[in-house]
Amino acid sequence: MLDPTRLEQLIGALCCLPGIGKKSAQRISYHLLLRNRDGARKLASALELAMDEIGHCQRCRNFTESEFCRVCASEKRDKTSLCVVETPADVFAVEDAGYRGVYFVLMGHLSPLDGIGPDDLGLSMLSSILDEGVVQEVIMATNSTVEGEATSYFIGEIVRNKNIKISRLAHGVPVGGELEYIDSGTLSEALSGRREI
Amino acid sequence: MLDPTRLEQLIGALCCLPGIGKKSAQRISYHLLLRNRDGARKLASALELAMDEIGHCQRCRNFTESEFCRVCASEKRDKTSLCVVETPADVFAVEDAGYRGVYFVLMGHLSPLDGIGPDDLGLSMLSSILDEGVVQEVIMATNSTVEGEATSYFIGEIVRNKNIKISRLAHGVPVGGELEYIDSGTLSEALSGRREI
Repeated sequence: MLDPTRLEQLIGALCCLPGIGKKSAQRISYHLLLRNRDGARKLASALELAMDEIGHCQRCRNFTESEFCRVCASEKRDKTSLCVVETPADVFAVEDAGYRGVYFVLMGHLSPLDGIGPDDLGLSMLSSILDEGVVQEVIMATNSTVEGEATSYFIGEIVRNKNIKISRLAHGVPVGGELEYIDSGTLSEALSGRREI
Repeated sequence: MLDPTRLEQLIGALCCLPGIGKKSAQRISYHLLLRNRDGARKLASALELAMDEIGHCQRCRNFTESEFCRVCASEKRDKTSLCVVETPADVFAVEDAGYRGVYFVLMGHLSPLDGIGPDDLGLSMLSSILDEGVVQEVIMATNSTVEGEATSYFIGEIVRNKNIKISRLAHGVPVGGELEYIDSGTLSEALSGRREI
């Protein structure tokens, strides 16, 4: 009943973004049309380029434009330590914490209900990396959720069968956290994992 | 320090959307790269097309791809009634309410502090439309905010000077609303605007 099809197309296309509904899409469209046409054009070309050029690293499965990502290609990283994470965002987080080994990015977690099995997480790739004999320790940094822990357990079995050391991130009180507000599960892990000072 | 520039560009470009910060932009990028590359490509082309082709209607200032928007170009609309709204979203809302006259879209409201004056709202265009002598009633449907009311008052002066009838949306109890939860300002307007039944 009303104008214009291009606008309706834009609103529809914006709805494919996670967390953006019809109303937000409308608001965003109007904002871009009225106040930021340059930004919108830049976004269009960035989307195009990213979708065309970004693929997965042939070794760690992280996003990259080349065959291998910067971490895997670097000579300076400690190749004997391999950190297994669920998503590329986790790589950023662990990187910020000062880790200087290499990664393996699962791009998800085991979730039989959603049809995500070991093949989807590239575990055969992980297995062949471990078979090279360079990695001496695998650090499991999957999320501390039911799925994350299950994934960690599953991968743990594979790693142990190859006689490689495996560890997982410590649970405990967050730095700067107040005991009063910490859940009992975390506190109980923090107690059993206490360290002499 | 980490991969890849194309991804960083995409995250940066997504930040130009209103209400999207760095973290959301990251999450959206990963989602598109992992699960919806087609959607992202569609969005890119929709953005490109919208920015290139959508302009303003030469008559009512609403967004359109042609010289005149569908409402202004339609033979079926009542050209004697002109509804003044602040944004294209308001046109949708008034349209949904069953209005079948024509519109004038201010694309904002008077806001001296932000440097938005009568020229930015196209009031000279509105003035020349009224001078054509076709419009018999102007309905002010600006928002019921301080700026909206001020804008309405300002336009009201122009319209009255041309001896054209002017009205504004009724204030009152929203349909389905409970009196208990309605603010006193609205209720007082509803009282003074009461209708015989």
